[in-house]
Amino acid sequence: VRRVGIIGGGQLGQMLGFAGATLGVECLFQDPAAEPPARMAGEVLSAPFDCRETLSLLAGRCEVVTYEFENVPVAALEALSASVPIRPPPEALRRAQDRLEEKKLFEALGIPVVPWRTVDSADDLREAAGALGLPLVLKTRRLGYDGKGQAIIREERDIEAAWQRLGGRASIAEQCVSFDRELSVIGARGLEGEVAVYPLTENVHEQGILRVSKAPAESAPHARAARKYLEDLLGALDYVGVLALEMFALGDNLLANEFAPRVHNSGHWTIEGSRTSQFENHLRAILGMPLGDTACVGHAGMINLIGTMPRDREALLAAGFYLHDYGKRERPGRKLGHATVVSPTADARDRSLEKGLKILAK
Amino acid sequence: VRRVGIIGGGQLGQMLGFAGATLGVECLFQDPAAEPPARMAGEVLSAPFDCRETLSLLAGRCEVVTYEFENVPVAALEALSASVPIRPPPEALRRAQDRLEEKKLFEALGIPVVPWRTVDSADDLREAAGALGLPLVLKTRRLGYDGKGQAIIREERDIEAAWQRLGGRASIAEQCVSFDRELSVIGARGLEGEVAVYPLTENVHEQGILRVSKAPAESAPHARAARKYLEDLLGALDYVGVLALEMFALGDNLLANEFAPRVHNSGHWTIEGSRTSQFENHLRAILGMPLGDTACVGHAGMINLIGTMPRDREALLAAGFYLHDYGKRERPGRKLGHATVVSPTADARDRSLEKGLKILAK
Repeated sequence: VRRVGIIGGGQLGQMLGFAGATLGVECLFQDPAAEPPARMAGEVLSAPFDCRETLSLLAGRCEVVTYEFENVPVAALEALSASVPIRPPPEALRRAQDRLEEKKLFEALGIPVVPWRTVDSADDLREAAGALGLPLVLKTRRLGYDGKGQAIIREERDIEAAWQRLGGRASIAEQCVSFDRELSVIGARGLEGEVAVYPLTENVHEQGILRVSKAPAESAPHARAARKYLEDLLGALDYVGVLALEMFALGDNLLANEFAPRVHNSGHWTIEGSRTSQFENHLRAILGMPLGDTACVGHAGMINLIGTMPRDREALLAAGFYLHDYGKRERPGRKLGHATVVSPTADARDRSLEKGLKILAK
Repeated sequence: VRRVGIIGGGQLGQMLGFAGATLGVECLFQDPAAEPPARMAGEVLSAPFDCRETLSLLAGRCEVVTYEFENVPVAALEALSASVPIRPPPEALRRAQDRLEEKKLFEALGIPVVPWRTVDSADDLREAAGALGLPLVLKTRRLGYDGKGQAIIREERDIEAAWQRLGGRASIAEQCVSFDRELSVIGARGLEGEVAVYPLTENVHEQGILRVSKAPAESAPHARAARKYLEDLLGALDYVGVLALEMFALGDNLLANEFAPRVHNSGHWTIEGSRTSQFENHLRAILGMPLGDTACVGHAGMINLIGTMPRDREALLAAGFYLHDYGKRERPGRKLGHATVVSPTADARDRSLEKGLKILAK
C-alpha cells in the first residue's frame, strides 16, 4: 500500500482520501479539529498543523506529504522536506501565502494582474487611493481566504477605518475592476513535468464565498490564455500536484487574481463532470503516476452548500443533483457540502442550477 | 446522519460504503473476516453472517439493513425484519439462493430459460441426460458462485463421478447451450416502485469467474427484452434496491441464467461509466431517495483483477484505466480489484481493453 500524508483534514482532505481509497492509496491526515471531515476517509493524527513532532510522525509513515490547507507554516514544511518529499513544493505555498509575493510572481511571468500597490501604512493606502482611484480593495498580504482579511474602500474618509479594521497589517491595495465574470483554471503537473489541464470553470461568489461553479466555461481565447498562464506558473514553480488559478475576465482579457497550490473548491465538479477528478489527479501527480484524462463528460454545475444543509435533500436528488455531505456541523458561512449536476447541454445545466438554487432557498 | 446496515464487508460493501460516505450516509458492516475490504469505508462488526446477536445490534443502529453477500441465512433476515426494514426483501434472497426456486420464478413470469431438470439422485441425472442430451451442466441448487458447485457432464460414464463430486446434493441439470454471448441487465427499484435500468452489459467469464464487462452492449431487441424481464422480476418480488439478471444471448433471444439480489460485479463499470453508480442507486433505493440517472457517459470496459494485482499499475493508468484496489491479500482466483476504461467509441474501448489485458499478462 502506498501512503500519502496530508496536512489538513477538511473536505478537500476527505475527497482526496476517497479518491485514494479506490486507487489503493492510503491517506493519513494531520488536523487539530475534533471531528475533521477527513476522519471518514482515513486515520487522522490529531495535532496542530505546525506541531513538528506530529509532522515528523506523519512523514515517517508516508512516502510523500501534501497539504490541503494553505495556512501551514512553510518553515515547518521546509524542515520536513529533508526527510520526505513535500509536493507541491513549499516554495509554491510560500508564494501563495503572501499576496505580495504572488503578485510579483504573476508579473515576473508576464501574467496580467489588476493594478495594485503595496500598503504598509494608512499613508500608503492614501497614496494607493490616489494612484489607483476609488473604490479599491484592501487585502492583507497573509491569512486571507473566503473573503476574510479584505475591505472595500469607497471614499477617502473610509481609509483610516479600513486600515484599522484589518489590524494595520501589511497589505496590498487593488483597483476595483468591474469584470464580466470570474474564471478559474485548474491543472495537474506530474513528476516528469507533464501537465493535464481541466476545461475553464466559471465561478460566482457571494459575500466572498464561492457559491456556484460551471464548466466548461466556453470561450476559446480565454481558455488559451488561461492554459498558458497556468503552464507558465506550474513550470516556474517546478510544481507537482494540482494548482488552481483564479482570474477575472474583462472582454477578451484575463487578469490573474490569486492561485491556490492545492485542489480547489471550483474544481469539485470534476468528481462527476470530468473523466478524472482533481482529487485523483492530485494523488496521481504527487505519487508519480500517469495523469488521468481531464475532459468533461457533460456540462457541469456545482452549488456550494453553505451554513445549513438542504432541508429537502430528496428534492435536490430528484432534480438530478449529486449530493456531497462533508459530515460537518451547521454554522453560518461554513461550507458543509456541495451539489453537482451534469447535463447534456449548457442550457439544461443552467436550468438545473436555477432549480437547485430554488430548492435550497426554501 | 442516515445509517445503513450491510451484511457482508467485501468489495461490494466497500463500494457501497464509499458511495454512502459522499451522500452523507453512514454504512455499518457485519463480516467475520480479519481484514474485510469494507473496513476502509465504515465500521465493521466482526461476527459471522448468521450471528443473531450481532445482527440485532446492527439493526438497532441502522434505519435499514441490506446485504452484499448472498449466503446469508434467510431465516435470520426474516427474524430481523420484525425490527428493521430489510431491503431487498428476504424473499428475493430466498429465491436467489436456490436454483430450483429461481428457475420456477423465471418460468412463472414467462422469462425464457435453458431447458433444465431437477436432479436429486444419480438416477435423476441419468434421466436428465436422456431428456436434455449431452453435454449438460450439473449445478447444486444452493451455495454456488463464481463457477463453484458446478460440473460439466460430457459422456454417460461421467454421470456417477460428477454426482459424487458435487457431494450428491440436491441439484439441477441444464442443457449446455452454445450461446453467442453473455449479457447482464442491472436495475434499481425504489420504494414507490419506480425503476431505473442501466444499459445492457456484455460479460466474458474465464473459469466461471467474470473477467471482462463492456457497456453499453448495443442490441435494441436484447435491450428491450432484458428490460421487460428485469421489470417483471422486480415487480414480482416487490423489490427495493439493485438487482442483476444474467442472461445468455442466442440470436435475438435471451435466456435467463440467474439473478443476484444485490449490486453486481458486472455493474462495476457504472462507477465511472454511468451518470450514477449502481452503488449509489442501491443506497438511494433502500433509503427511499429518488433514483439517479443510469445513462452511460461513454463506452465502458471493466477488467477484473484476479489472483494478483497488476505488477505495473502505472502502465494501466497510462493506458487510460481507472484502478480499483479492494485492499485484499493476493490469492489465486480471488477478486482483488478491477480496472475500468471509458472511451468515446466502442472501438476505442475495445482497443483499450486489449491493451489492458496485455499489460496484465506481463
